[in-house]
Amino acid sequence: MTDALPPPRELCGGRFLRLIAQGHWEYAERTTATGAVAIVAITDDRRIVLVEQFRIPLGCRVIELPAGLTGDVPEDQIAGADALANSARRELLEETGYQAAEMRHLLTGPTSAGMTNEVVSYFHATGLRKVGSGGGDEHEAITVHEAPLDGLDAWIAERQAAGFGIDPKIFTSLWLVREWIRSPYYN
Amino acid sequence: MTDALPPPRELCGGRFLRLIAQGHWEYAERTTATGAVAIVAITDDRRIVLVEQFRIPLGCRVIELPAGLTGDVPEDQIAGADALANSARRELLEETGYQAAEMRHLLTGPTSAGMTNEVVSYFHATGLRKVGSGGGDEHEAITVHEAPLDGLDAWIAERQAAGFGIDPKIFTSLWLVREWIRSPYYN
Repeated sequence: MTDALPPPRELCGGRFLRLIAQGHWEYAERTTATGAVAIVAITDDRRIVLVEQFRIPLGCRVIELPAGLTGDVPEDQIAGADALANSARRELLEETGYQAAEMRHLLTGPTSAGMTNEVVSYFHATGLRKVGSGGGDEHEAITVHEAPLDGLDAWIAERQAAGFGIDPKIFTSLWLVREWIRSPYYN
Repeated sequence: MTDALPPPRELCGGRFLRLIAQGHWEYAERTTATGAVAIVAITDDRRIVLVEQFRIPLGCRVIELPAGLTGDVPEDQIAGADALANSARRELLEETGYQAAEMRHLLTGPTSAGMTNEVVSYFHATGLRKVGSGGGDEHEAITVHEAPLDGLDAWIAERQAAGFGIDPKIFTSLWLVREWIRSPYYN
């Protein structure tokens, strides 16, 4: 099947996204970034650091992991192999005010394998120190939450009932932190 | 912020996807579907039913939950409130050959909240009965796996090492099944 696949061609595009056609398939691609990072950061008192922001595509406020693009600023291009971890540090700090002593890669995987070539790299931030208020860059209006891990289901349910979107990546990251880090196959 | 937002306008489009501009933002939208479903199906002998297929956007084979679109066939449009569960049953059967006695909704959330308005609804399939071989419809070439839950990390690690993509939705669904179903906030 891969042998028979014609090369991708650009169907049309905007400033930040383009549509690609390849064979009988269509998918979306970011024009300004090479990927995305999402960070699971758990404080010493067992709270997970989450962000809340209005998301134009969904038309509602969404509760998410701290996250952002990579490859969209010059320092990512010169950072080489550390580019992803550097992006994760930067996004965590900008969005939440937390500095992490260590950033450990957990998994890189597709967000919507049929619709886009976007992949997200999940990172586990440890050695957290609150050094700022967060809130994002000048274009973002982010509210920071520290949600209790023991009782997260109630915390989430309350926000769902209030009409917030809930990003499933939160649960992915919790599974990875709980199940993978102790696995002999994870390094 | 919502008050000041101009209406969405179509930037450009293909057969299956279009790009939307709204204010300073751009996002991708499916033209032929209203959403997507993903199904977590665990057999009596503690195996999770997964599918493997070549994904053109990513250029590799990806291990994923059984999943598919909803709202893209006539029966979804007449099924009303049950449309999502019906789509989940159909996709599980088509892709894996498993019929489910019950389909329970777990969560609906965005795949990539900044990039698309796509949301995925996670379902938990129970009362599984193998009635066919699966493999998808005439356009799909899907391999079905029944991966052991006890030892899933090794199973996944082996496929990662062989160059397969791993869809993080697998881990989302496992967290939801393990943590949410016993929660008093889940119904």
